[in-house]
Amino acid sequence: MTSASRPPLRVGMIGYAFMGVAHSQAWRTAPRFFDLPLRPELTVLGGRDAAGVAAAADRLGWADTETDWRRLIERDDVDLVDICTPGDSHAEIAIAALRAGKHVLCEKPLANSVAEAEAMAAAAAEAAASGVRAMVGFTYRRVPAVALAARLVAEGRIGQVRHVRAQYLQDWIADPAAPMSWRLEKDKAGSGALGDIGAHIVDLTQFLTGETLTGVSAVLETFVRKRPLPASTGALGGVGGEGMGEVTVDDAAVFLGRFSGGALATFEATRFALGRKNAIRIEVNGSAGSLAFDFEDMNVLHFFDGSEPAETAGFRRIVVTEPEHPYVSAWWPAGHGLGYEHGFTHQVVDLVTALAAGEQPTPSFADGLAVQRVLDAVERSAADRSTWTPIEGAH
Amino acid sequence: MTSASRPPLRVGMIGYAFMGVAHSQAWRTAPRFFDLPLRPELTVLGGRDAAGVAAAADRLGWADTETDWRRLIERDDVDLVDICTPGDSHAEIAIAALRAGKHVLCEKPLANSVAEAEAMAAAAAEAAASGVRAMVGFTYRRVPAVALAARLVAEGRIGQVRHVRAQYLQDWIADPAAPMSWRLEKDKAGSGALGDIGAHIVDLTQFLTGETLTGVSAVLETFVRKRPLPASTGALGGVGGEGMGEVTVDDAAVFLGRFSGGALATFEATRFALGRKNAIRIEVNGSAGSLAFDFEDMNVLHFFDGSEPAETAGFRRIVVTEPEHPYVSAWWPAGHGLGYEHGFTHQVVDLVTALAAGEQPTPSFADGLAVQRVLDAVERSAADRSTWTPIEGAH
Amino acid sequence: MTSASRPPLRVGMIGYAFMGVAHSQAWRTAPRFFDLPLRPELTVLGGRDAAGVAAAADRLGWADTETDWRRLIERDDVDLVDICTPGDSHAEIAIAALRAGKHVLCEKPLANSVAEAEAMAAAAAEAAASGVRAMVGFTYRRVPAVALAARLVAEGRIGQVRHVRAQYLQDWIADPAAPMSWRLEKDKAGSGALGDIGAHIVDLTQFLTGETLTGVSAVLETFVRKRPLPASTGALGGVGGEGMGEVTVDDAAVFLGRFSGGALATFEATRFALGRKNAIRIEVNGSAGSLAFDFEDMNVLHFFDGSEPAETAGFRRIVVTEPEHPYVSAWWPAGHGLGYEHGFTHQVVDLVTALAAGEQPTPSFADGLAVQRVLDAVERSAADRSTWTPIEGAH
Amino acid sequence: MTSASRPPLRVGMIGYAFMGVAHSQAWRTAPRFFDLPLRPELTVLGGRDAAGVAAAADRLGWADTETDWRRLIERDDVDLVDICTPGDSHAEIAIAALRAGKHVLCEKPLANSVAEAEAMAAAAAEAAASGVRAMVGFTYRRVPAVALAARLVAEGRIGQVRHVRAQYLQDWIADPAAPMSWRLEKDKAGSGALGDIGAHIVDLTQFLTGETLTGVSAVLETFVRKRPLPASTGALGGVGGEGMGEVTVDDAAVFLGRFSGGALATFEATRFALGRKNAIRIEVNGSAGSLAFDFEDMNVLHFFDGSEPAETAGFRRIVVTEPEHPYVSAWWPAGHGLGYEHGFTHQVVDLVTALAAGEQPTPSFADGLAVQRVLDAVERSAADRSTWTPIEGAH
Repeated sequence: MTSASRPPLRVGMIGYAFMGVAHSQAWRTAPRFFDLPLRPELTVLGGRDAAGVAAAADRLGWADTETDWRRLIERDDVDLVDICTPGDSHAEIAIAALRAGKHVLCEKPLANSVAEAEAMAAAAAEAAASGVRAMVGFTYRRVPAVALAARLVAEGRIGQVRHVRAQYLQDWIADPAAPMSWRLEKDKAGSGALGDIGAHIVDLTQFLTGETLTGVSAVLETFVRKRPLPASTGALGGVGGEGMGEVTVDDAAVFLGRFSGGALATFEATRFALGRKNAIRIEVNGSAGSLAFDFEDMNVLHFFDGSEPAETAGFRRIVVTEPEHPYVSAWWPAGHGLGYEHGFTHQVVDLVTALAAGEQPTPSFADGLAVQRVLDAVERSAADRSTWTPIEGAH
Repeated sequence: MTSASRPPLRVGMIGYAFMGVAHSQAWRTAPRFFDLPLRPELTVLGGRDAAGVAAAADRLGWADTETDWRRLIERDDVDLVDICTPGDSHAEIAIAALRAGKHVLCEKPLANSVAEAEAMAAAAAEAAASGVRAMVGFTYRRVPAVALAARLVAEGRIGQVRHVRAQYLQDWIADPAAPMSWRLEKDKAGSGALGDIGAHIVDLTQFLTGETLTGVSAVLETFVRKRPLPASTGALGGVGGEGMGEVTVDDAAVFLGRFSGGALATFEATRFALGRKNAIRIEVNGSAGSLAFDFEDMNVLHFFDGSEPAETAGFRRIVVTEPEHPYVSAWWPAGHGLGYEHGFTHQVVDLVTALAAGEQPTPSFADGLAVQRVLDAVERSAADRSTWTPIEGAH
Repeated sequence: MTSASRPPLRVGMIGYAFMGVAHSQAWRTAPRFFDLPLRPELTVLGGRDAAGVAAAADRLGWADTETDWRRLIERDDVDLVDICTPGDSHAEIAIAALRAGKHVLCEKPLANSVAEAEAMAAAAAEAAASGVRAMVGFTYRRVPAVALAARLVAEGRIGQVRHVRAQYLQDWIADPAAPMSWRLEKDKAGSGALGDIGAHIVDLTQFLTGETLTGVSAVLETFVRKRPLPASTGALGGVGGEGMGEVTVDDAAVFLGRFSGGALATFEATRFALGRKNAIRIEVNGSAGSLAFDFEDMNVLHFFDGSEPAETAGFRRIVVTEPEHPYVSAWWPAGHGLGYEHGFTHQVVDLVTALAAGEQPTPSFADGLAVQRVLDAVERSAADRSTWTPIEGAH
Repeated sequence: MTSASRPPLRVGMIGYAFMGVAHSQAWRTAPRFFDLPLRPELTVLGGRDAAGVAAAADRLGWADTETDWRRLIERDDVDLVDICTPGDSHAEIAIAALRAGKHVLCEKPLANSVAEAEAMAAAAAEAAASGVRAMVGFTYRRVPAVALAARLVAEGRIGQVRHVRAQYLQDWIADPAAPMSWRLEKDKAGSGALGDIGAHIVDLTQFLTGETLTGVSAVLETFVRKRPLPASTGALGGVGGEGMGEVTVDDAAVFLGRFSGGALATFEATRFALGRKNAIRIEVNGSAGSLAFDFEDMNVLHFFDGSEPAETAGFRRIVVTEPEHPYVSAWWPAGHGLGYEHGFTHQVVDLVTALAAGEQPTPSFADGLAVQRVLDAVERSAADRSTWTPIEGAH
């Protein structure tokens, strides 16, 4: 089947910063390596600044631009809206897009509050009735090593889960001189490390274990409460200018959790772990085996098979680049690793495949809401002397 | 100075299981590699079973035996009592020995309760007035990589501590068929993973940071509540026999903590982490650098120096076998690593050195009490919906 | 500058197997992340099978196709010919293309013999006089960690090079049942592991050290001399069918070498290292420091700085994802690693940049010839009882 | 059985530097952890300097001293002579001791020349006829991870061996200012890195594979030909004084080899690998699996099982501290690692066990001679343009 013979999937994307760049690469690349049932078209890019969005569209390969997201979602030539804006606008855009009959891919976290996330999940459920689909962008699920880990858990290779330890460690604001950004303002970002990176490890551990968190006990901390206002803005960096701004979100979040199957969990999300750049570390110990992953070595999964005789038992360093591994056969020969952006390409593959099949892509907005409820419980526990706080709706 | 010209230090040791074997090796070995100011003599070994203690004394190199610990501590030819029994007897023996004017080295945890530990610390303080010394055996402080880490922290190489994450992961009872042992009975062991191995990481992190824990939020769990009674007994293993016994201690403990300087901490102690054998993992992130250690690779310390330019910054894998490293110059050339037992030898070295100098060896009973208070707060928090629980006496 | 305002660079690519796919991705992706002075156009794809090349062009994004490479290189709308065919056709195509005034990017190894490579280098030198450029595709030079290593060597950070150890370990034909392929036939591939993967480590070590190999002593081996003929063909794999074919190339090559600055070197290239998938391992020890790299962990460079005090000296695990690192600032935030294909994108970037500047891109055909001479000396030494064999033209 | 009821094995040891210290610790420690059939007694220590040997005997635990090795080997109260002197005296002492009816343990390398080694092996064969035994001290065979590797090879777990790569990397004279020592003088040490550390990897790879090297191609190098004479002497270090001495041995040796079963091998022994302290790295790839070991992480063996499905195949990091592992059950619980000196203790265990059983301990002097013949072939190849040089007596 040639690409021309595949039905198009016309995409309108809103936002073109870090996430917009990653999504664009995925939309462009997925059909080059995978046999997609639909042919993605980079139809229109949305952004408030006309010059900025035009330059980005040219750079990133989008055919047209809009400066008003409402116009973008109403366009007849848009089948799917891809939301890459900060969290404070997710709910409004996503709900409007779904009501306009457009499929939606929304970056994580789903929203800045449980109330918004509930409204979004409700809108998604309503839209699903007429075949309109919504998906939230927890792309780390699509790292092949992570997908392999989930497969091994599902196959029972580690047995009953007893321990989950999850860390998301960064250091990009460890320096008190690092400037303010929207990610440090509560009204834009909703929360700090908790929602930005903690959300990922909450989703990943629920995905890997196939279980849900039922309660948490938490502490939040803001180590640096005032920072220089930025002289210029960058993706995650920038340079400090004159004046100081107030950091209104957490710098770090630590919490204990309990999974629905009884496992104990520890979570830590911080932007203050000097020397750790994007260390998503997850280890799961079960009654029959263990799994360990670190995104700083993203093409590797460590697996301990408890059924192996003690003489030769040990964590196996699986280089997850074999054709037998999830997503890998479309890419390169064994040992030729993938990078960060490939998770986004796999996200497009799974989304497009589900849309063509008329099925619900995962993670759904309901999955995103589940994460939001955990984040909310974390904040409430932290505000109430770390008291154990059940997760609403979990079981 | 020949060995004969050094004053003797006549040791009476009580208990000859796992810890007794390790202590014996240390007493025998320390004077062969270090210039000790006193000459340790393995004078007498105590144990209840006459045949057992005699065989052990022969094997381990002790000159004489006693079957009643009270007689042992009263002997005129004993200068120091080394207590290697389970925790339920520590307080009684240690206090009696101190009152009998004997120096005491007591295995960890100091005691099975805060009340006992307080009495022991009081007895130690009283004894110190007359030059009688007490020390608790947190030997992991004497792993060269750990001692180097503490030195780097003290020198300010990592700045202000912001994060501590500590895990002590084992798997020796992950199998529900693993039999009962005294370590699984509350009246003998006091607690389970918490006191046995969690105590180590509480002490280590307080030692490394030079700070104290001021509060905790905790969850404890017993995954397997009934186990086969042992057909035979072994150090940590054994084989199951007929009948079942009740596990009355925790299998795993997870807790959050706050250090006196403001750092956030996560702790996890478990015997159910399949594939992890004795993984004491500690990472400390500060404002100027980070340190990471794993006892499964015990001759290595990882150090991130935040003052290094980004181009060449990275965690350094320091092979801690150079003459410049703590304790190492007495041993082998660079790259020729040490093992588990060397920590005990270093403990003897530090203890003997302090005794000869008339100084307080560390960790003191007060340090052991501080750990006990943390363990107690952990248990109270776990029993009270993980509510944040301040550590008594911490500041 | 918008993309439309940049002069086009119209590319004709010949071959669309493994390398063709990688090159296509690079041509498509480079302008999306880098500010290229020229705008690459995927003008025409060449391949002998009309249906095959048409399907590939559709999949890979090429606007047109040719089934005769001679027609492709004569097209007026082609500025650069990208040669992704097996090595036996490199010389003929590359020389013809250069004589037709087209820039050439030729996959490695440059040729199947020194004679061919000499002719190619001569043609390249002649073409350069009229501004037509030729480059050979040793892409691993453009892995950021490798480029950083070369920079550190050039800056003198490791001092005088004393040892080079280089291994390229794969295992894709370790199984004697793995079928025949053109890569196992001497008349198509020139040599086996030696030219296919050994060529990479010869080039990489010459690139990293900035020195040339002056002599070698070698052994070649073919472990499995007959293999099943393939029932179907695949990139590197396939399934065995009926009948047996003869393997006429080496399965493995090991050789000693001496670099122009006096360093000793060991080289090993094999397709029989079970469990090693694409392990390009290079370690360089100098008088002032050391560097180590393994492509199976491609975003990391290990650097030992000999000027560091012994107390804190150790190999630094540099996660080569900082904006300060080569090529990285165009991509993602720190810690978000790149993959195999990014080296090809960087190759396009460097090639296009050099073309626009009227400069010679590297590695040149002369560099490719230098590698070919080493491979030739390896074969001659192996055929002459491993006798030390000087490299022609090296100094 | 009490220690008193075991027959004694009265040891006379000659030499008390680095190796003498290690051997003493082994003689003292072995009976404390293993049920030895004989009871080692540290009867007499030999050394030329009366004061030095007396101090050493006191420190190391030897009951008596001799300043003339000839007197030591003639003593009636000596059953076994343990030779820890530099290689130039091995032959004379060992042959005399064997002829005096004493068992001999001789440090490696067996001798400084093939002729000496042949005479020693002949003397050992002659002595064996009357039950007198000789063993050479390649202790790295007794690192549990190495012994486990040999066991797995013998069990066929890696199939037919195809590749051996062995490196012994140190850096203690990488600095040109490091002073002279006897290890850098040909008449005392025989050779440099080749005999000192290269001998170990020759023996280890022959031991691990159960095969012998049949030929080599080699290059030797002395990077620093003049060094300061030592102001003081130390084990391996010391400080430079006035005047310069000539280094008459190799600083580094690299060679290719072929094993009797057809495997290709690369060897590298150097004291100039900055940052590598005692990195004995051995990897063996077979038709069914692979093994990898690095002494800098000595309690770990990496094993790739080629029979594992690709989905979960990977090198297993076996922490070699389980009771099922060689030598380990005598020591500590799982995860509590051993150190450098334990190999010497295991050597004593195996030697004493063989003596009591009237069996030949391994490695024998014939094994030591086999290593010496490889070293000799390496030197001859290096002196003859690296020409392939068969190993005398190998098959």
